[in-house]
Amino acid sequence: MAFEFKLTRRVEFAETDMAGIVHFSNFFRYMENAEHAFYRSLGASVIMNQHNPPLGFPRVHAECDYRRPIRFEENLEIHLIVREKRPKVLSYLFKFRKAAANGEMEQIAHGILTVVCVAHHPDGTMAAMPIPDFLAKQIEVAPAEMLV
Amino acid sequence: MAFEFKLTRRVEFAETDMAGIVHFSNFFRYMENAEHAFYRSLGASVIMNQHNPPLGFPRVHAECDYRRPIRFEENLEIHLIVREKRPKVLSYLFKFRKAAANGEMEQIAHGILTVVCVAHHPDGTMAAMPIPDFLAKQIEVAPAEMLV
Amino acid sequence: MAFEFKLTRRVEFAETDMAGIVHFSNFFRYMENAEHAFYRSLGASVIMNQHNPPLGFPRVHAECDYRRPIRFEENLEIHLIVREKRPKVLSYLFKFRKAAANGEMEQIAHGILTVVCVAHHPDGTMAAMPIPDFLAKQIEVAPAEMLV
Amino acid sequence: MAFEFKLTRRVEFAETDMAGIVHFSNFFRYMENAEHAFYRSLGASVIMNQHNPPLGFPRVHAECDYRRPIRFEENLEIHLIVREKRPKVLSYLFKFRKAAANGEMEQIAHGILTVVCVAHHPDGTMAAMPIPDFLAKQIEVAPAEMLV
Repeated sequence: MAFEFKLTRRVEFAETDMAGIVHFSNFFRYMENAEHAFYRSLGASVIMNQHNPPLGFPRVHAECDYRRPIRFEENLEIHLIVREKRPKVLSYLFKFRKAAANGEMEQIAHGILTVVCVAHHPDGTMAAMPIPDFLAKQIEVAPAEMLV
Repeated sequence: MAFEFKLTRRVEFAETDMAGIVHFSNFFRYMENAEHAFYRSLGASVIMNQHNPPLGFPRVHAECDYRRPIRFEENLEIHLIVREKRPKVLSYLFKFRKAAANGEMEQIAHGILTVVCVAHHPDGTMAAMPIPDFLAKQIEVAPAEMLV
Repeated sequence: MAFEFKLTRRVEFAETDMAGIVHFSNFFRYMENAEHAFYRSLGASVIMNQHNPPLGFPRVHAECDYRRPIRFEENLEIHLIVREKRPKVLSYLFKFRKAAANGEMEQIAHGILTVVCVAHHPDGTMAAMPIPDFLAKQIEVAPAEMLV
Repeated sequence: MAFEFKLTRRVEFAETDMAGIVHFSNFFRYMENAEHAFYRSLGASVIMNQHNPPLGFPRVHAECDYRRPIRFEENLEIHLIVREKRPKVLSYLFKFRKAAANGEMEQIAHGILTVVCVAHHPDGTMAAMPIPDFLAKQIEVAPAEMLV
């Protein structure tokens, strides 16, 4: 049973803006990167074309609180933590950290992403569906002390 | 006194993803577009280099709830509404709408962006500062009935 | 018969990078924006789902030469010029300009985009196809003096 | 002496577009990623703030030829090859490959990026400068047979 995942990535030049720091919208892409890597670690993908109709996980809620900036070529740790699991819904907490000058990890931001499992019907509509068993049975909510 | 602003933009191809809809992270760029256009409508810019040290408005919180997808070449209305005003902080509500097939405007998403006024010191640090008077005196919180 | 199209857009904050200027990759998105607006001006779209199989215009070549930077909130003029037309291929020249301090338009960059018309088959493959007549008959190569 | 560098990255969801493939503009970000990793491998960064005035490498030319699409979660190899070296200019060839179904590497695209070393003066202007010695002396043009 998995309830967390860590991904580290180095900040790319194109992710910065004229304020010299990572543009705030990129934290949402970082969250999604960690989420997708989490599924891969469980042998799954966010796009499940082997199902008929194909399944996907559109986002229904996303948020982020920013505490400190992060800059080009710094290493960002993205810590995904499962905060909620329902038959058709998963919600994740993300803690963003980087190594400070003194070597300790410092909090950069934290975020939330809530996704719902849907079937993509051939006519273009989507309908909420239970998360497939093989994936659902591998995921559990993290211990309460991690969710703060 | 201004408490709202509307911006319309057509969805660009590069804003879509393989699910055929606008990638969720772009809604945060749309919010920022409307916010910056709001400042311009008041004779200001989000970057105030005429101040010494220069002022800026880094984001401290961002969130979005997604109800319906929006697709390539559809017209998105971004409705900015001032929800909170403090000496150093502004917070905005955004209502995203598009014209549905029947001609009525349908809700696509709503979001929040909270920004803080800071001075960018030459040594790279930032410090929270009161919003400059000429801008602050033009902005007020919207009537309560708009904030739902 | 159309052989040119002009689009103006204001540089967005998220399009800049830590060098304080528009990130070079965004010029390719600007070219595509102008190309798609050109098709719309002719009553078409770059995605033609009304065809069976659907038609599209994947890019086979893109290039850009950069002369001067452009910054946040500056107005960029994107001038699309048809430089080549073959049964399955269109190639465009783009001239990027902005208004300089003295009011004259100054050259920022110029680029090329070459696209090929393809059918998207249900099995995921693509095959080159003649550009549909209703679109092809509206487009012609620009006079030679514009192509420098 | 270094004349090549290889970087591999997995395609991210947000890099795809509604055609189900990587948006063409992202290949320019990929080239830049490999270029910056190349500098890091030589103990340098594309932004040299330790110089006074600071040095940077704005792009003066970029191009890409696209042969095959690449999709979400596929692994892209970006092979940087030094094609030209002048006192103030570096030009790179990039070969993009992915592992095909049969296990062989297949060509996806190839590109060129030409950058010039500049000093960023405090008044916002830039002036071309010789590439710093410690970096220049580590880089050489690749053997001719790699440049095809």
